[in-house]
Parts: sequence; C-alpha cells; structure tokens
Amino acid sequence: MPSFAARYNGITGSAIREIFKIIARPGVISFAGGNPAAEALEEERIADLAREALGSDGKRILQYGGSEGWPPLKEEASRFLAQRGVDAAPDSLLPVSGTTQTIDLVCKALIDPGDTILVENPSFLGAFQTMRLYQARLSPIETDERGAIPESIEEAILKTRPKLVYLIPTFQNPTGVTLSVERRKAIAALAARHDIYILEDDPYRDLRYTGDDLPAIRSFDESGRVLYMSSFSKLISPGLRVGVVAAPPDLLRKMVVGKQSTDLHTDQLSQAIVARYLARGYLPDHLADIRALYGERLNRMLAGLDRMGIEHTTPEGGLFVWCRLPGGRDARAALDLAIRKNVAFVPGTHFYCDGGHEDTLRLNFSNSDPDTIDRGLSALAEVI
Amino acid sequence: MPSFAARYNGITGSAIREIFKIIARPGVISFAGGNPAAEALEEERIADLAREALGSDGKRILQYGGSEGWPPLKEEASRFLAQRGVDAAPDSLLPVSGTTQTIDLVCKALIDPGDTILVENPSFLGAFQTMRLYQARLSPIETDERGAIPESIEEAILKTRPKLVYLIPTFQNPTGVTLSVERRKAIAALAARHDIYILEDDPYRDLRYTGDDLPAIRSFDESGRVLYMSSFSKLISPGLRVGVVAAPPDLLRKMVVGKQSTDLHTDQLSQAIVARYLARGYLPDHLADIRALYGERLNRMLAGLDRMGIEHTTPEGGLFVWCRLPGGRDARAALDLAIRKNVAFVPGTHFYCDGGHEDTLRLNFSNSDPDTIDRGLSALAEVI
Repeated sequence: MPSFAARYNGITGSAIREIFKIIARPGVISFAGGNPAAEALEEERIADLAREALGSDGKRILQYGGSEGWPPLKEEASRFLAQRGVDAAPDSLLPVSGTTQTIDLVCKALIDPGDTILVENPSFLGAFQTMRLYQARLSPIETDERGAIPESIEEAILKTRPKLVYLIPTFQNPTGVTLSVERRKAIAALAARHDIYILEDDPYRDLRYTGDDLPAIRSFDESGRVLYMSSFSKLISPGLRVGVVAAPPDLLRKMVVGKQSTDLHTDQLSQAIVARYLARGYLPDHLADIRALYGERLNRMLAGLDRMGIEHTTPEGGLFVWCRLPGGRDARAALDLAIRKNVAFVPGTHFYCDGGHEDTLRLNFSNSDPDTIDRGLSALAEVI
Repeated sequence: MPSFAARYNGITGSAIREIFKIIARPGVISFAGGNPAAEALEEERIADLAREALGSDGKRILQYGGSEGWPPLKEEASRFLAQRGVDAAPDSLLPVSGTTQTIDLVCKALIDPGDTILVENPSFLGAFQTMRLYQARLSPIETDERGAIPESIEEAILKTRPKLVYLIPTFQNPTGVTLSVERRKAIAALAARHDIYILEDDPYRDLRYTGDDLPAIRSFDESGRVLYMSSFSKLISPGLRVGVVAAPPDLLRKMVVGKQSTDLHTDQLSQAIVARYLARGYLPDHLADIRALYGERLNRMLAGLDRMGIEHTTPEGGLFVWCRLPGGRDARAALDLAIRKNVAFVPGTHFYCDGGHEDTLRLNFSNSDPDTIDRGLSALAEVI
C-alpha cells in the first residue's frame, strides 16, 4: 500500500472528533464545541441578503473570482476593523474560508518541518493540528490570569528562534482570559525587537459582556510584523465560512498564492452576504442581542460553578469558561461518566501542546439556554 | 526578515496571474480562463434555492458542520456519480471547496518533499502549482490524440516510483483530448498492478457536444486505487466552490483530517444549494442548455481556426481548444501583440511541467459568444 506523508505521523484527530460525534446525538447537553446559539443564526436575514446580492451582482458572484477575495467584502472588512482600532487598508486584507484557513496559509508560507511556533499553553487545539500538519514544533508560552507572559515569550524567542508566535489575546480559547493592555504593548514591541511574526487571533473580541474593550496587539505594532485575524463565524454564521486576515504585504502575497493553490478563492456568495450584512449596518444591533443572550448564559454558568465549588476562570466575554477539578481528578474519566448522563465537554489536556494538566476542562456556555446550563451542571456535579 | 518556507522556492504564480489581470479589463476578448458563460449562471434559481434551503434547514446550514461534508449533498452527489457509471456510496465521498482543494488534500495526505507525481504533458497548470507547493517532483507522461499513453505511464512508474498519477481523461485541460476506452481500462489495470493511486480529474465530462460518453477510469477500477474528482463549478457555478471526490477509505480518512485542519468544512450554504439543485432535477435541462450554447461556440472557433490555417485539436466537448502556431512562432510574443488588440489567451508552455513547446497555446470558447469569437480570432490572425 502506498504510504502516507510524514506530516501525518502522530496526527490522529480522534480525541475531539469522538466527542463531537457524541454531541450530535439528540438530547445531549453540550458544553463542548464553540457553537453560536441557534437563536443567534438569522436564516431569514441571510436568505434576504443572498437574494439581494444575487439580484444585483449575481453574474459576478457565481463566476470565478480572484484569490485576493471579493472586493466589496474587503472594503467592508477594512471599515469593520477600523472601528475596532485595527488600521488595515482593503488591499492588506485576505478573505479566507474561516480562520482555520488563515493559520493554514500562514504556516504554508512560513513553516518548514522542524520550525518552531510559540503557542500559549493552553491554546486552541485546532490550531495545534493545523500547525502540526506542517511539522512545526510547538513550544509553550507561560500564561497567567492576565494572559501570555511577555517575559516567557521573549525567553522562548531567544531559546527556540521561532518563526511565529500564535496568540488569542481576547477571551482566549480555552481559558476565557484576556491579555492586559500593558502586555499587548510589550508583545508588539517584542515583534519589532526580534523581527518575528505575531499571529493575533481575535475572533471573540466583539463578544464582550462586561468591562471595556482593549486595543488589539496590532494597534501597537510599528514593525509591520503583527498579523490580525478576524472571523465572522462567531458574529454572523460559522456555516458560511468567512474570515479575514490583515497581513504585511510580502507575507500576504505568499498567502494569496497559497490560497490560489489551496481552494482558488473563498465562496463568493458567502463573501457577498457578509459584505452586505456589514454594509447594511446590521451588526451593532445583532451584537447587542447576542451579547445579552450569551452574557446571561455565562453568568448562569459561573453561578453554577460557584455553587459546585469548582475552581474556574471568570471571563468578561467569549464562549468558554476554564475549570479545574478538585483533588486532581482526571477530566477524561469525568467525561466518560458525564457522557452516560448525556453531558459533554472537552478535557483540558488536549489544549496543552505538551499534554498533562489532566484535571482541567473547558466548558462552552453559548450553545445552551440557562436552564439547560443548570441541568448540565447538576449532572456534572453528580459525576465529580 | 523572517524567511519564507522552502516550498515557495521557484513558485511565482505570476505568468498566469498577469494574464488574468488583463482579462479583467473591460473590452478585452478573453480566450484565457475556463469560465462558464454568463448566460449559464442562474442567479435567480440560486437565490430561490438559497431561500428554500435556509427556510427548511437554516439553523443547521448556518451552524458549524462536519468536515465530512453536508449529508444531503453526499447523498445527491452519490446519485449524480452513479448516473455517470461511478459507483461511490455517500460515505466514500468528501465534499470540497472546489477541486483544487481535492488536489491539495490528496497531496497533503500523500506527498513528502521529493515524491513524484506523474502528470500528462501538457496538463492543468493550476494543479502543477498545488503539487509543487508540496515539493512534489512532476514527471511527464507522453500523450497523443487519444490521450495519455499507458505504456508511457508504466515506464514512468517503473522509473520514478510515483505516489500518484494525475489524469484529466475527458476533454482534457488544456488540449481538449479525450482518453480512449481501451486506455482507460489499461490505466485502471496499472493502478492495480503497481498498487498506485490514480487521481482522475473529470470536471468536463458532462460538457459533451458530440460523440458518446465514455466510462470513467474509476469504473474499471478493481483495486480501490482510483480517486474520482468531480466538480459543480463548470455545471452550476464556480463562485459557489463546491466539488466532490470519491476516495478509498484509508485515504479519505486522512483527507478528512486534512480538511479539518485546512478550513474545517466547506461552506454549508453552497453545499445545501447544490444538493437542492441536484435533488430538484434541474441539472439535465440546464446541461442541455449549456451544451447547445457551448457546442455552437466550439464549432465557431474550430471553423475560424480552420480558415486561419492554424493547427488545432478537435475536441468533442469541454472548454478548450489547443493550437500550434505556424513556423514555430512563440505564443508568448503573440500574446504580447494580441493584448494590444484586446485579445487574451494562455501560452501553452505553461501547461508543460518541463516547459518548452513555446509554439502552443490554449483557447477557451465557452466565455465568448460566436461573434466575439470571430472578432477575437480575426485579431489573432493579424497578430500571427
């Protein structure tokens, strides 16, 4: 039998995939995943926007497009980012088929086998798998309750000479923790000092339920080395697969060639729908709605965890709460028991690039209504 | 400055990109590209299908989906393939974001740097770039007026021990030539004899204007080593980016993990639109329409080339005619002159994995009406 490529050695994709098969069963309360609430998905509005877009631009939308992306989306995304303090001209943006693709294209452009990427520990496990398929070496950055520690990053830069530092600064996945302003400044300065790329993955920043917005790392960037990744998956719809990345020109050119060779271009109907959604000014009201919806769910979950006496982070936004089981108990064993009670979550060990930390777990609150959250936590309380 | 990955060495993506910038200018007659005719793009029908799909399944479509693809599309695509003599259960199919992604995922699963892929010479230049970004070595297969020569494939297999043989058997890109039935059988037997994967890329088979359909290579496959790639880009819309591949189970599993790490899943609205398009039975009538439309254009182009005394292939379908300039003239120089007359095409040398053949060129006929074809060819006649 022909052999598979070496990049697949050690890649199983299985631990999480099994959990996702379980949560697809009817009746399962899922604290796994990072799904928007069903109520937050606006199928009628999307159908209206699809008809409008196809009515005015249908021939162009349905034809082949440029790998560089749908021009009206780039215009709208540039405005969207500017409102968030990220200064990026349309020409510096690349629309992508979701931000997983941004990580894929950045790795394609930069990573040779054995190259190092610094990642927060814990961080998003999906990003790990994308990076590992480029045979990157993942090296951990220490974090605390204010996010990634700049001194730990600098130490790791000097020690491992990485190509890239991957950070989720706002309502981090999986911890929900937000990087402080001082550290954002310090990290932007590190990019300049060491001439190293920072990949700032910021899909949750608009999902803030308390506290004040913080400026992006990119807003402090004077070196042109900070890439800013945004996504409409959490804000409009993940099924449409539309995200955007702002990147320096030389790297952007490589990513466009990579995009051309990967899928030619992002689905144009979805790019046009998102562009119109933004142009119509629908986002602010919709964000107010989902912030109210998710904020209530977060509060319900935090209150439940407090009642249970479970150690947890207290995020000001996002989709996730991070917990530690009492007595060093293994969250994977707890998951096996929880599944019998039709409750699912993701054990925390999978979010550590070097494993361990078996007593941690990630809970999602956006995809369950408050009463379901109570019921799910009650079932968990019995298990642990 | 941080360096780019070695896979980009020698990748420029520029020759063709420049041509595509030119054809975007208003007033340019484009025989470049492989675009469907504007008349073949059904924006009202697509808008209706989008509304229907979102009306009945909106919450599921707009939510995260599985990397394995939208289940109703897999059902419909399985029926679509069965009608074409390709027996592939829904579970053996992976919906992709266009067939460029199939090539990307197959390479991701199989190709280590330096591995060999056999390609027809000439073949689709976009596939070359995707393969080269995996640092594959492309090794040419000889072709004639009946397509790839099995003896040349076997010789190359024995000499280069390739991981993969990439073939476009029907109305090949760029030549328009169709592989004979006997050779299809012989090539399927080669896959079994040498335990080697064949990647059968067959996006044009439904665009037949004369002659009879031929069975796919895959229909003769007894080894489970022939992957069959299909696409709805040429039949429904390329802007929607929906294709499908039938692959053996072990390779399919690797491709699903690759897909998960590349873009999580294909746009679900477009998958749902294509699924409904097929379920509604719209395709046969639409195919009859575009066959009539493109068949007339092909005939007009062939007649014009005959008048000009240009040596050309005589395809029975597809989107392309392949030409040779008289007197060994260089098609790149001819293109420079043609562009001044607002006519564009793709010089043939780019379709050879080892270059040369500067006197060849590829002409597309689907995207220009018959009178425009006449005008474009008149301008070309002045140039050459």
